[in-house]
Amino acid sequence: MLYSKLFGKTIKDVPKDATLISHKLLYKAGFIRESTAGRYYLLPLGLRVQQNIQQVIKKEMDKTGAQELITPVLHPKYLWEETNRTSSVGFELMSIKDRNEMEFVLGGTAEEMLVDLVRKFQISYKDLPFNLYQFSVKFRDELRARGGLLRLREFVMKDAYSFHTSEEDFKVEYEKMKNTYTAIFKNMGLNTEVVESDNGYIGGEYCHEFVVGSEIGESKFLMDEMGYCAHEDVAVFDPENKNLDEIEKEMTEVDAVRGNTMEDGEKLHNLPLWQQMKDVLYVDEKGRFILAVIRGDLEVNEIKLMHAVKAYQLRHATEDEVRQKLNSEPGFISPVGIKKQGAELKIVGDESLRTIKNAYTGANKKHKDYLNVNIDRDYKVDMEADIALAKEGYLSKNKKPLIAKKGIEVGNIFQLGFHYSSKMTGASFRDVDGKEKPYYMGCYGIGLARTLATVVEVYHDDKGIIWPETVAPFQVHIVGLDLEEKQVLENAKKVYKLLQTEGIEILFDDRIGVSAGAKFADADLIGIPYRVVISKKTKDQLEVKKRSEKETKFVSFEEFLKILQFSH
Amino acid sequence: MLYSKLFGKTIKDVPKDATLISHKLLYKAGFIRESTAGRYYLLPLGLRVQQNIQQVIKKEMDKTGAQELITPVLHPKYLWEETNRTSSVGFELMSIKDRNEMEFVLGGTAEEMLVDLVRKFQISYKDLPFNLYQFSVKFRDELRARGGLLRLREFVMKDAYSFHTSEEDFKVEYEKMKNTYTAIFKNMGLNTEVVESDNGYIGGEYCHEFVVGSEIGESKFLMDEMGYCAHEDVAVFDPENKNLDEIEKEMTEVDAVRGNTMEDGEKLHNLPLWQQMKDVLYVDEKGRFILAVIRGDLEVNEIKLMHAVKAYQLRHATEDEVRQKLNSEPGFISPVGIKKQGAELKIVGDESLRTIKNAYTGANKKHKDYLNVNIDRDYKVDMEADIALAKEGYLSKNKKPLIAKKGIEVGNIFQLGFHYSSKMTGASFRDVDGKEKPYYMGCYGIGLARTLATVVEVYHDDKGIIWPETVAPFQVHIVGLDLEEKQVLENAKKVYKLLQTEGIEILFDDRIGVSAGAKFADADLIGIPYRVVISKKTKDQLEVKKRSEKETKFVSFEEFLKILQFSH
Repeated sequence: MLYSKLFGKTIKDVPKDATLISHKLLYKAGFIRESTAGRYYLLPLGLRVQQNIQQVIKKEMDKTGAQELITPVLHPKYLWEETNRTSSVGFELMSIKDRNEMEFVLGGTAEEMLVDLVRKFQISYKDLPFNLYQFSVKFRDELRARGGLLRLREFVMKDAYSFHTSEEDFKVEYEKMKNTYTAIFKNMGLNTEVVESDNGYIGGEYCHEFVVGSEIGESKFLMDEMGYCAHEDVAVFDPENKNLDEIEKEMTEVDAVRGNTMEDGEKLHNLPLWQQMKDVLYVDEKGRFILAVIRGDLEVNEIKLMHAVKAYQLRHATEDEVRQKLNSEPGFISPVGIKKQGAELKIVGDESLRTIKNAYTGANKKHKDYLNVNIDRDYKVDMEADIALAKEGYLSKNKKPLIAKKGIEVGNIFQLGFHYSSKMTGASFRDVDGKEKPYYMGCYGIGLARTLATVVEVYHDDKGIIWPETVAPFQVHIVGLDLEEKQVLENAKKVYKLLQTEGIEILFDDRIGVSAGAKFADADLIGIPYRVVISKKTKDQLEVKKRSEKETKFVSFEEFLKILQFSH
Repeated sequence: MLYSKLFGKTIKDVPKDATLISHKLLYKAGFIRESTAGRYYLLPLGLRVQQNIQQVIKKEMDKTGAQELITPVLHPKYLWEETNRTSSVGFELMSIKDRNEMEFVLGGTAEEMLVDLVRKFQISYKDLPFNLYQFSVKFRDELRARGGLLRLREFVMKDAYSFHTSEEDFKVEYEKMKNTYTAIFKNMGLNTEVVESDNGYIGGEYCHEFVVGSEIGESKFLMDEMGYCAHEDVAVFDPENKNLDEIEKEMTEVDAVRGNTMEDGEKLHNLPLWQQMKDVLYVDEKGRFILAVIRGDLEVNEIKLMHAVKAYQLRHATEDEVRQKLNSEPGFISPVGIKKQGAELKIVGDESLRTIKNAYTGANKKHKDYLNVNIDRDYKVDMEADIALAKEGYLSKNKKPLIAKKGIEVGNIFQLGFHYSSKMTGASFRDVDGKEKPYYMGCYGIGLARTLATVVEVYHDDKGIIWPETVAPFQVHIVGLDLEEKQVLENAKKVYKLLQTEGIEILFDDRIGVSAGAKFADADLIGIPYRVVISKKTKDQLEVKKRSEKETKFVSFEEFLKILQFSH
């Protein structure tokens, strides 16, 4: 490719709202332009990188025996209704009607589509397992898009769906995909942590994110030195027993002229924060009241809470609701003697309540608290669950301190189990015994554009991008200098042609009238692995520099070919 | 690929509504499944063919210096409003709002998107020309979808857009694209006619379709032996002078107790059909009345008429409208003395009116006709234009008879001129003289799935598909027989591996317990170019048969490699 002809050359300015380094560099170097917020054009350079990423993914997926196909982008809405996902994720989905008033959803993930495809076939246990994947455009009506390619509203995703006769068989594939994903990212130069995560609206019981450590990442996770690694949303820890050897004292109601905060209670009673009960009242999407009760030094993890009570949305109750629906008082709520009259109330107690004795908490009346409250004896909960938010420094279940990390989620894998096959009719296979049984499923996703941006976040310096060779838009960047001299120009063209003959992809900066400094700056910004200068100085040799190194070498054409071959 | 593992095996049944051979074969052979009408899954075999087609296109496009990029699927609607295309094509477009009530259009073509991208750059005459293309999903809310892949509502299109400083420069690219398209289709085994066509809602002044002759095609076009070739919608012809040497007689109004048809007039007056005037009254989308007047033996071409009067939609006027709005009478309308009171009326006269003298026509009153009507003297038209439908047997402008043909449109190229750049602000380049000028544009499209189906329509026999090698899903189909015998199985696996090592793509029918007949039938149905049988009979040799030939040969592995190399 001649740089003089390339559509999308480097520029100096960056968009005003660009804060992320990948956004700035990809824009300046001519890889991307924004269409509308969260929807980008990939310019020729950007598309080449994305295509290379696609190739890296395809190669590893094919090795596992997974088969590529493609589904339509417009999913008939009745499929999403069959699994009830329209109500669970309605706010992120975009839907559309055709001229015949048929409703469609713009595909965000394609579980229903794949099940609908597979159930068009008569599947028997002999056909299973299989893993079907595609590269297709996905749509997410995100509340906010991040700058650049890190959080898009429209992007190409590699999504794969596997079908199995049993959980055991699925687990083999899940491990295979874990390893495959690790290899895929490694092939692009990305080291990933495999992080236990929340399954969001995909369904199923467990899943893992592949996260590249980065300060600008939005995935917060916790690790211990024994290999435990989990997203903040789902991380578990050992809340440690506090005073279980104390004798249970008699519960008493006391005056408590205090403010509404935890600290106000702590000060008034001069007791440790952990001995206080924290009571948080929520309302879910159906109008149910959820009272989350947890040890005072811990925080409620709303994701865990939502899963525990099977809610899709939670909000805090208003002061009026506390008073009018539950006859209680803001700042003084507690499960002790709370009246459920009129409103549906579910009390969820965190497991940490069993690590303390003689707790103190509000008495559901203004300026009244209870002291020496003990679970089972003084109050009961409707459900006990782990609803606590893990934090750095807490002990893991391995009794090792948790370390907090941040990173960018580039992929994820999900156990789906029977989540879809049990809801969709005909989602079954004929087993050895001749009976129709639902298949056991998993799914596996990688966002290509976010991966591309992540590579830039990891591989850059103050001059520009430093592409790993596997994904670089070109392998070699020929910088022609002194091209107004005919012989130099001829020589540069000859090298360009010869390298092309060898199957090497080259960007040739053939511009005349642009300074050496400007050309070097452009080469550094664009970040192609090998820069080859051809000038009146270089004569029969090539002046070669790796983008990732400082040193410049003068080598012959043949030596340079060897360097390139060796690097693969 | 092992056939035993392939997702999407052959079946015997076809969908009830399948009438097209490509639909039946692609379905039976396991290449496609329908999701909703006009939206298809491409199964692994089908996707492989589409990817090969994409590669053939990409290779030829890249040769011309065109550059691949990609635009979002969701186009902001304000861009389509900028060019006023929302009103001209509203009924085929699908639009959607995001959570912020921003409106988008699902991309059907991407002229506005490309102009919007290009205007983000400071383009000068030095940057021009360039041609930018993409492979992206397109949406057409078609009234009806045809079975299979021939007319889809969602499909991958290669769409390209070129930008030029001048019409002359554009014409060079247009010729280049004509040749490139011809080469692309030829590389897939398709011979195309380059047919002058209507530009539909794309805009611009002229365009050409690439049409593969086929009885099931929906493109009707006319050719002559001198190389003239045009779609029925736009074809021109020589209407030939009829009686221009007659002297103009005096116009008279006569009683005409007759029915409303042309034949009724012909019988009553005992004069030739061509001497009658045909008067057809239409109403356009704005409520304007359009009276199309043409020689009685010809038919009005509504596409030409719409272009002439710049209308997007036409319908026939009702009898009430004829009477109440134009004070005329159905069956007796004519431009002679028609009263325009109250309604906006535009009279469009076809050029054929100048080929006759002393015509007869209605007198805008029931049972009254005029005889000896002559243009200019007895009536005037608001516009003279070619609005006649060409037909087989008419003389072309080369004075040769036109021959009617049918075919499948697989691609098209459009002159856009300043159609977009004049409507969109900032769609300009800085010229040599330092002034900002609109660029001159063209666009060029190929539907991949329709091309795929067309290949099948052309290449099949009663047993199945016969894929050309360039697009075949695999190059070689190994049919293993007697695989329950260990040595035969080992041998088959060995050949499979060795061919893979040579970089050859193979489908290996490794099924045990399936008859030779069934395997041969499957191989014929799927249509891979080379069938290689390995059985206890073949020993060290391979039993090779080309899908397109009858003859079977026994050759050594090395000989077979030579055959394959020779074929490329």
